Amino acid sequence: MFSTTADFSSWFADRCRAHDYRVSRVALDRLDGWRFERGTGNLVHRSGRFFSVEGLDVRDAGREVDAWQQPIIVQPEYGILGILVKRFHGVPHFLLQAKMEPGNVNLVQLSPTVQATKSNYTRVHGGKPVPYLEHFIAPHRGRVLHDALQSEQASWFLGKRNRNMVIEVDQDVELLDDFCWLSVSQISELLAVDNLVNMDTRTVLSGATPFRLTGSAHGGATFRDALNRSWRPGAAAHRDTAELLSWFTDAKCRSSLTRQRIPLAQVRGWSRADEVIAHDEGKHFTVVGVDVSASSREVASWSQVMLQPRSEGVIAFLAKAIGGVMHLLVQARTETGARDVIELAPTIHCQPGNYPLNGARPRYLDEVIAAPRERIRFESVHSEEGGRFYHAQNRYMLVEADDDFPTDIPESYAWMTFRQLTEFVRYGNYINVEARSLLTFLNFADLGAPVLQGAA
Amino acid sequence: MFSTTADFSSWFADRCRAHDYRVSRVALDRLDGWRFERGTGNLVHRSGRFFSVEGLDVRDAGREVDAWQQPIIVQPEYGILGILVKRFHGVPHFLLQAKMEPGNVNLVQLSPTVQATKSNYTRVHGGKPVPYLEHFIAPHRGRVLHDALQSEQASWFLGKRNRNMVIEVDQDVELLDDFCWLSVSQISELLAVDNLVNMDTRTVLSGATPFRLTGSAHGGATFRDALNRSWRPGAAAHRDTAELLSWFTDAKCRSSLTRQRIPLAQVRGWSRADEVIAHDEGKHFTVVGVDVSASSREVASWSQVMLQPRSEGVIAFLAKAIGGVMHLLVQARTETGARDVIELAPTIHCQPGNYPLNGARPRYLDEVIAAPRERIRFESVHSEEGGRFYHAQNRYMLVEADDDFPTDIPESYAWMTFRQLTEFVRYGNYINVEARSLLTFLNFADLGAPVLQGAA
Repeated sequence: MFSTTADFSSWFADRCRAHDYRVSRVALDRLDGWRFERGTGNLVHRSGRFFSVEGLDVRDAGREVDAWQQPIIVQPEYGILGILVKRFHGVPHFLLQAKMEPGNVNLVQLSPTVQATKSNYTRVHGGKPVPYLEHFIAPHRGRVLHDALQSEQASWFLGKRNRNMVIEVDQDVELLDDFCWLSVSQISELLAVDNLVNMDTRTVLSGATPFRLTGSAHGGATFRDALNRSWRPGAAAHRDTAELLSWFTDAKCRSSLTRQRIPLAQVRGWSRADEVIAHDEGKHFTVVGVDVSASSREVASWSQVMLQPRSEGVIAFLAKAIGGVMHLLVQARTETGARDVIELAPTIHCQPGNYPLNGARPRYLDEVIAAPRERIRFESVHSEEGGRFYHAQNRYMLVEADDDFPTDIPESYAWMTFRQLTEFVRYGNYINVEARSLLTFLNFADLGAPVLQGAA
Repeated sequence: MFSTTADFSSWFADRCRAHDYRVSRVALDRLDGWRFERGTGNLVHRSGRFFSVEGLDVRDAGREVDAWQQPIIVQPEYGILGILVKRFHGVPHFLLQAKMEPGNVNLVQLSPTVQATKSNYTRVHGGKPVPYLEHFIAPHRGRVLHDALQSEQASWFLGKRNRNMVIEVDQDVELLDDFCWLSVSQISELLAVDNLVNMDTRTVLSGATPFRLTGSAHGGATFRDALNRSWRPGAAAHRDTAELLSWFTDAKCRSSLTRQRIPLAQVRGWSRADEVIAHDEGKHFTVVGVDVSASSREVASWSQVMLQPRSEGVIAFLAKAIGGVMHLLVQARTETGARDVIELAPTIHCQPGNYPLNGARPRYLDEVIAAPRERIRFESVHSEEGGRFYHAQNRYMLVEADDDFPTDIPESYAWMTFRQLTEFVRYGNYINVEARSLLTFLNFADLGAPVLQGAA
């Protein structure tokens, strides 16, 4: 355990130095173990396992662009993302791991105790056993605090879900190299550091809210009070849970989106060079290949396909005190790859670079990116899953809306309290991964505090 | 409104006499508007709308039979099942309709205020407008008490869902012919009458629990007290909600079921005669055709395909007081046609006729059907949806388990309180239609009371 942030930083720097990692870009057609399948042109692994990149035809999406085709990752199997919790002298600590993922801009970030695809933990590629996995497997696991199948990036994955678990144990747990116990207040500090706490940790922590700190927000008494009220059970919410469930059901029934898997070779608007598959207008993402060698992973070296976004994204909630209770502006968003088409999303999630200033732009984008400094209550840049996404970074923001921002909003949006949003996390398939990540910042980080730098 | 049950019975008999209904069986190959599609042999309507009967190949189901093929109804569009609630002199009343469905053994049953497929209410077959529909359509609808997309019979439908709605209004509502207002206590009485309250009404009422009567159970103080405690918020449940959600997630991750749509003509184990499609061993159901003429429906006459079960089914919960709180034995059941494979189901749901006494029989079936009279707390025979299923009847039962029935149970079962089960109804895709129907009896009917007869 660490007494100070400096202690952690020193340990973390040490773990980064302890291993030798190399990631290099390689052309798709020379990627070991991967090939373009004859006929379909789908990108597949020779084992037939892991995942594939195929094509998707989308129509009637009801978004800024109504119909398109795109490459998409197909990975039907569930993995486990699990965090172990243990109290030391009564203080709950989370077991996290300094882990390399080839897509991380800084290679090593803090991942959950267990972050394993089924191929990993059933050891399809014959690697080392997954440490601590036994705490997450019935019937001998500890006390379950959270356990739900949750969706992942629905613009990039077709129907992907992982099992998010938080398990509390009382017994002694051996502390392995690369692992560390962090208290809630330490995690709270580290969440404000760019590119340190990885996406898998963030989605799991969104279900660990019983451990949330209370009353830690800065930014003035009015802001802090409204925030704390937003957490209170029975706080006067703009719409009650029955109304929110109805609004969500309505959005699902209104959606007209249809989608169909198509061969990757037939996807219009994208071109396959030998090296990569890229969007013809330079938007969205590029499909790339990487060679990886690592001394610490289950296998010492491998090659894989990844998705590389063309530009940085913005993931933001607009917040507004309604009746003295802070509410977040939640979107019932049509999600290309979501299992049930609609999920609850942040106010904004897009790559601003995809939208010219003089064209159709996502609603509320400009309210967020042009917000004056004093209304930005949280802002930090973080990576998406570094096992599938190459240098995928998003700017996570909480922006307090202007005082005259309307309470009445279009039908695909709703105001929700922090508590309402967090309650939905318990049930799978309601809150999308971007909103869960952002919610973790809002629940655990010091909102309104000056941004910390330099811990990693 | 009715002062007595006899008043209702007289009104209902009158409504049955007011219309002229004829339903006659007709061979599938002579069914007007329907045909076996060339190539696949799928049963389709010439409009391409409504629904079709196709084939399904099921593997690794982990049930008594592990793999099979079967015909299944494919009907992707959502309908609305909605009940209007209004208080008269402070007493909440539900607006129900005496409605004919060709599959009902007695033709006319009590259906929700609105029971409309999208084809109905968008008037694809050009019929009359659906009365009261405006109360269920945004933005002018009343107060939403319940609104969720819920699954239907997953052995017979592939991924079918309907929108279940309970809407409360204050304004005057014109009472049309065939409609009546019933108070909760009247519905409570009528639910004990065989084949009167139809499946659509029952599934919607499972979300109308704020109107439940309390303390109405018969059957001795111990039974009644345990039942009432099972309803109390914060009652000592055998497993808390986090554990139940985890158990449910675990069941989903454990399931290995795979299913694939196949042409109906290729389904093994079933034979198509000119007249019907039937299971070769006389089990499960038969696909049949009917001609219908009715003076009161949206269109005066039509022909359609239906599924006719080969035998009566049993749908039952075993109940047991644990720590003085009544718990129901809930099954995390692999559901052939469910969108997400696993749903929460009653302890027993099967057609006992499918299982010879000397073969593999569903777990707990014999505990239920051999239970002594005094342990049967509810028993009544009801119809499944008469718009798709012909003479489909199930015996709905609540059976108190033997005193020495173990509290420890196999991993695919869990003990849940009435309140826990009812909370899950709010969120779609947790509780299957059989469990929701049964829950409505448990919530609204007089448990332990002598069975009423003769009202219909």
